[in-house]
Amino acid sequence: MTRAATLAEIAREAGVSAPTVSKVLNGRADVAQATRERVEELLRRHGYRRRRGTQSSPLLELVFHELESVWAMEVIRGVENVAREEGLSIVLSESSGRLTPGQSWVDGVLARRPTGVLLVLSGLDRSQQEQLAGRDIPFVVIDPAGDPGQGVPAVGTTNWDGGLAATRHLLDLGHRRIGLIGGPSRMMCSRARADGYRAALDMAGIAYDPELVRDGDFHHEAGRRVGLELLGLPERPTAVFAGNDLQALGLYEAARELGLRIPEDLSVVGFDDLPLARWVGPPLTTVRQPLTEMAEVATRMVIDLARGTRPGTLRVDLATSLVQRSSTAPPQTPSRTVDGESPRL
Amino acid sequence: MTRAATLAEIAREAGVSAPTVSKVLNGRADVAQATRERVEELLRRHGYRRRRGTQSSPLLELVFHELESVWAMEVIRGVENVAREEGLSIVLSESSGRLTPGQSWVDGVLARRPTGVLLVLSGLDRSQQEQLAGRDIPFVVIDPAGDPGQGVPAVGTTNWDGGLAATRHLLDLGHRRIGLIGGPSRMMCSRARADGYRAALDMAGIAYDPELVRDGDFHHEAGRRVGLELLGLPERPTAVFAGNDLQALGLYEAARELGLRIPEDLSVVGFDDLPLARWVGPPLTTVRQPLTEMAEVATRMVIDLARGTRPGTLRVDLATSLVQRSSTAPPQTPSRTVDGESPRL
Repeated sequence: MTRAATLAEIAREAGVSAPTVSKVLNGRADVAQATRERVEELLRRHGYRRRRGTQSSPLLELVFHELESVWAMEVIRGVENVAREEGLSIVLSESSGRLTPGQSWVDGVLARRPTGVLLVLSGLDRSQQEQLAGRDIPFVVIDPAGDPGQGVPAVGTTNWDGGLAATRHLLDLGHRRIGLIGGPSRMMCSRARADGYRAALDMAGIAYDPELVRDGDFHHEAGRRVGLELLGLPERPTAVFAGNDLQALGLYEAARELGLRIPEDLSVVGFDDLPLARWVGPPLTTVRQPLTEMAEVATRMVIDLARGTRPGTLRVDLATSLVQRSSTAPPQTPSRTVDGESPRL
Repeated sequence: MTRAATLAEIAREAGVSAPTVSKVLNGRADVAQATRERVEELLRRHGYRRRRGTQSSPLLELVFHELESVWAMEVIRGVENVAREEGLSIVLSESSGRLTPGQSWVDGVLARRPTGVLLVLSGLDRSQQEQLAGRDIPFVVIDPAGDPGQGVPAVGTTNWDGGLAATRHLLDLGHRRIGLIGGPSRMMCSRARADGYRAALDMAGIAYDPELVRDGDFHHEAGRRVGLELLGLPERPTAVFAGNDLQALGLYEAARELGLRIPEDLSVVGFDDLPLARWVGPPLTTVRQPLTEMAEVATRMVIDLARGTRPGTLRVDLATSLVQRSSTAPPQTPSRTVDGESPRL
């Protein structure tokens, strides 16, 4: 089945001209919505694929669901490192906080014919995936927020192991009342980190206490707000796994407001190892997520796919590692100090 | 003079075909280097300008000289805010630390035909400026590093006023030995901030002491290194204007290493007001540079230029403002505490 035949076939079946089908394929705006949908439906039904080798632009599309965080810069740097080597430019978009980008973004991508698409914390719905596949535009998800679906190429990190390592570090120091500030529960990475926390407690024979576990949204302000709740408990935790670095800094602020010293009165572990984790006072013990390397691996993967090279595996999780700094220490005369019954030594 | 006539004229003079001139105009790679240079030279000499209205792509080019810093994210967000409203996508590049992007970047821009170009801390040389002008691609410099040159549209901030305000704040608190960690001296913004510092001292009748003034590079590590030098002086400063926020955090680290408390033993003022300035301990007093707004104004300006609207002014400096937080306080029994002669009250 040659491309010309299929184009003509689809045009005939849709009752339009071949150039109109071509316009739809190229994401051109000058096709009526109803016609476009009919043609898209036929392209889908016939499993139409643009012949490999159709000229693509030396562009990589990079989409974030939000650009708020310093987190995003680590990813951009990784993509940029590989793109520059390969002579590709990056087209950057933000999906305004939605985890799936809108149709206007897809139309733009079809018109630009990029070499590939990188999605950060976002997924494409089935129809969007088919539209890209029909134009032979590969895509890879970086740090998938939800389950990206069978066969969708994705590069993540070992979030569960990271949550486990963070919590074990606190257990090893002697902490028993360990709080958790989780991320949004709709995100896979938050769930995996929280499950790692739970597994570590369980393996240490410590009962899971739902009162010590609260959801945040991965931003600084949530860390402060939820931190104030946790530190205001009648029997407050001596240590908190803060879910990510920004929440850890919010928790630092909550501790300062309450006059609690880190690590003497409260141990804190973050997640991400953003540059600022080294710079805060005290420097933050955290779980390093290799964001820049994840972005580099994903960029190489999407370029391989664009060249028709099938990577050995379409799902990679890069390892996390605990980085010990100065925000964690053994608890001071655990829990009894709260009641003021135990004198300072 | 119509476009066709000029193209033909230039082709005749260069001894090539009109399509070859067209290829050069569109940044196509398949023209011999010598031919390309001859044609570029003729385009320049004849002051050739592509007729306004030639179709441009709905892209904005955004170029950084480096993406290392969280600073860059504030700018990206501002550009993205306006680009999204206007239905434009952003093509992001990094010029690998050089303040002027290379020719391969220019070729890419000519091939992509963006609506406009935004340069951050970078300038274009004269030939690059003429290549863009010949294709009617406007550009605006955000926070010009050097003098962008007469008539070059640019959006900056009042760096001199900011340096003055930072230093005056410390003087008002009673400090007399005030150090400065400057940025790279090749950057206009560092020079302006340093001159503001000097002017404030001068107006307060305090002699400028070169020993208290050192150059950094706007990164965290320089703040720590230069901070250790300043704090190791026989008569150390009681306050330091750190040049930017990252250097201020480096200085925080230097102070921690020496067991000096902020603000009791050392007052610190930053510059930028990055999000992390609020999050560190103690929260940083700093000069707010409205990076996101600067990027928004620059983006609107380049879009206006692309539409043929001449903005009222081509040079805008947005105002800085001092944000007082907790890293500054009056000096404790100034200078005598250093010698240990003055007992604590």
